[in-house]
Amino acid sequence: MYFDNAATTPVDPEVLDAMLPFLREKFGNASSIHFFGQETRAAVDKARQQVAALINARPTEVVFTSGGTEANNLAIRGFVEAIVDTRDVKPHIITSGIEHPSVTNVAEDLEKKGVEVTYLPVYADGIVRIEDVENALREATVLISVMAANNEIGTVQPIAEIGKFVKNLRSTGRKIWFHTDAVQAAGKIMVDVEEIACDLLTISAHKIYAPKGIGALYVRRGTRLHPQSLGGRQERGIRGGTESVPLIAAFGKAAELASQLVETDSKRLGDLRDDFESRIFERFGDAILNGDRTRRLPNISNIAFPGIEGEALLINLDMQGIAVSTGSACSSGSLEPSPVVRALGADDARARSAIRFSFGKQNTADEVDRILEVLPDAVERLRSLSPSKTARSESSAA
Amino acid sequence: MYFDNAATTPVDPEVLDAMLPFLREKFGNASSIHFFGQETRAAVDKARQQVAALINARPTEVVFTSGGTEANNLAIRGFVEAIVDTRDVKPHIITSGIEHPSVTNVAEDLEKKGVEVTYLPVYADGIVRIEDVENALREATVLISVMAANNEIGTVQPIAEIGKFVKNLRSTGRKIWFHTDAVQAAGKIMVDVEEIACDLLTISAHKIYAPKGIGALYVRRGTRLHPQSLGGRQERGIRGGTESVPLIAAFGKAAELASQLVETDSKRLGDLRDDFESRIFERFGDAILNGDRTRRLPNISNIAFPGIEGEALLINLDMQGIAVSTGSACSSGSLEPSPVVRALGADDARARSAIRFSFGKQNTADEVDRILEVLPDAVERLRSLSPSKTARSESSAA
Repeated sequence: MYFDNAATTPVDPEVLDAMLPFLREKFGNASSIHFFGQETRAAVDKARQQVAALINARPTEVVFTSGGTEANNLAIRGFVEAIVDTRDVKPHIITSGIEHPSVTNVAEDLEKKGVEVTYLPVYADGIVRIEDVENALREATVLISVMAANNEIGTVQPIAEIGKFVKNLRSTGRKIWFHTDAVQAAGKIMVDVEEIACDLLTISAHKIYAPKGIGALYVRRGTRLHPQSLGGRQERGIRGGTESVPLIAAFGKAAELASQLVETDSKRLGDLRDDFESRIFERFGDAILNGDRTRRLPNISNIAFPGIEGEALLINLDMQGIAVSTGSACSSGSLEPSPVVRALGADDARARSAIRFSFGKQNTADEVDRILEVLPDAVERLRSLSPSKTARSESSAA
Repeated sequence: MYFDNAATTPVDPEVLDAMLPFLREKFGNASSIHFFGQETRAAVDKARQQVAALINARPTEVVFTSGGTEANNLAIRGFVEAIVDTRDVKPHIITSGIEHPSVTNVAEDLEKKGVEVTYLPVYADGIVRIEDVENALREATVLISVMAANNEIGTVQPIAEIGKFVKNLRSTGRKIWFHTDAVQAAGKIMVDVEEIACDLLTISAHKIYAPKGIGALYVRRGTRLHPQSLGGRQERGIRGGTESVPLIAAFGKAAELASQLVETDSKRLGDLRDDFESRIFERFGDAILNGDRTRRLPNISNIAFPGIEGEALLINLDMQGIAVSTGSACSSGSLEPSPVVRALGADDARARSAIRFSFGKQNTADEVDRILEVLPDAVERLRSLSPSKTARSESSAA
């Protein structure tokens, strides 16, 4: 049973069917002039339309990348490199304290090169305040990058408000742009680049039932980026490298299916998740929901079980055939407690006791019943082994 | 009939079989701790061994990328960025005048940032001279990047000599490194990082019968690179982003098959190519072989047919079901004549009259017979339409 859909999702059989011709007879290089190239070029064009439709963009505004990480790097580093060529002042960017490492690590890398960065707080609910964005604004601010929804706790950020704020500034002649990492949001909630009013937006295929290794950056017309992968003329010169036609075709199909999913399956997943959570909190009165109960993706549930180590619970559940995670897969192996949960004001112990359950379209109510047969016993067993057992049971109502 | 295998190759059915489980039931994120992650982690580890074996490297020295372009960018830009942190002097790099755009464009981009670059000549045979490498050396030289074999004309460069030269310099305490783009060479001729004595080496999967979207950079132990794609801890922190397990598994299988191919199929392809060429030159006494007849990959034949436009011949052949190219697919759509053929000392007319035939393991002697039934007529027809017809027939013996 797989409850780690925020780390990656299984490939939808329809998506696999859409890519198979490009792993068999339709193998041409999409840049080739001959027939073999023309048929794969057409497939890339079709997929670009499908991906654009998912986020209400124009196909020419979609740049395919090798995934969300590359897209976030291209958006932020590519944008700053294009800007510094035209300015004397060191640029300033505003981001949040709970971004994915592919945003945070780029921001920190840019800081070493003299770029100034403000990391906005998110408070106990895991949500950025628009007032904080406004207060962080400086004369030198050129970019705001705030994720659409967080990958560990699922909180949905006020990106439409930020987009409106940036748009208003631009209408007064300010040169400032807005990027949002929508890797977790796309396919789960409505993501519309016009509604968000963003200039750059990142999506990834393997979070929406397509294979790993493909993603895209939405680049609004007129937004200049310095290419990060220089080479051929692919992707209008913004991203060199032979197009991965099979993965692009798969991404296109997955985007098409995701557009439908947002309307149908998200409600079902939300109900499944809410049922799961209410039964957990009924059993464990001291369990803590990390993040905000309502302003949240429908598929993510991040819960701290005081007195246990999340990793021990993960391994215990894994031995019983249930896959969950302690945080983002990208940070696995890190000895540090989750910086996202820490950013909520949680201490190390609470951060270490967190487990992320993330639901996908293949999950069923029966699976939720089954995890609820296994999970409480596992939590109790680990608590009985914990040195802080006595202290905890005294303070707990459960 | 597909004679454009230097642009891309069909996926070997064995390679497809190797990747399919990772597009179906084995879909975990290789960074996840649970069972789903462990089984894909094992697949990535296995593929890393297979790719390492193809080039006689250690598995820990293989960094998976989204392809040859990303690997070349990481090698050169990543190396220079790691170096500039530690030096006051602006670094100098040496490369050749016939590198792939993913090397040349990175070099030109670095020039804008103050890095000095020497582009070595290749003369009429399309081959770099070791003496020119030695003469280009400066106190500030930190990197030499010369491709193993050219993608348009197939010429094999003296990389083992360059490697020896760099190794000798290093033994005297000089801080200088050597990168080679072996995208076209790997799987066609022996590529051994110990024999070449390189520090960085680029390979790509879709040139050796695996899908597009995956490649690797060999990074010799102790070689420092500044990551170009910052994010999670994947690829030992050198390249963030969720591993594309299906493509990596495919690349591993293709590398395993390629190790065998070098020994068996390369001879067959060379014979096929040589037979093709001798029959072409017999018919067209004025046709010109671009590059060197012997120091060349076995699968590439680049021929100029004076008096025709290569692109017109390409389209003519395509209409008859035969796929060839005028140069690299990456430069398709460029109005400029091939810079590689120009670097041989050819004028624009000769550069524009060039056609690249590149053979693959699926090509047969029957296909060569068939192309020789079609090609000469196509060339004659185009020549009869050419305004320079009279001038040419007077100077031609054919």
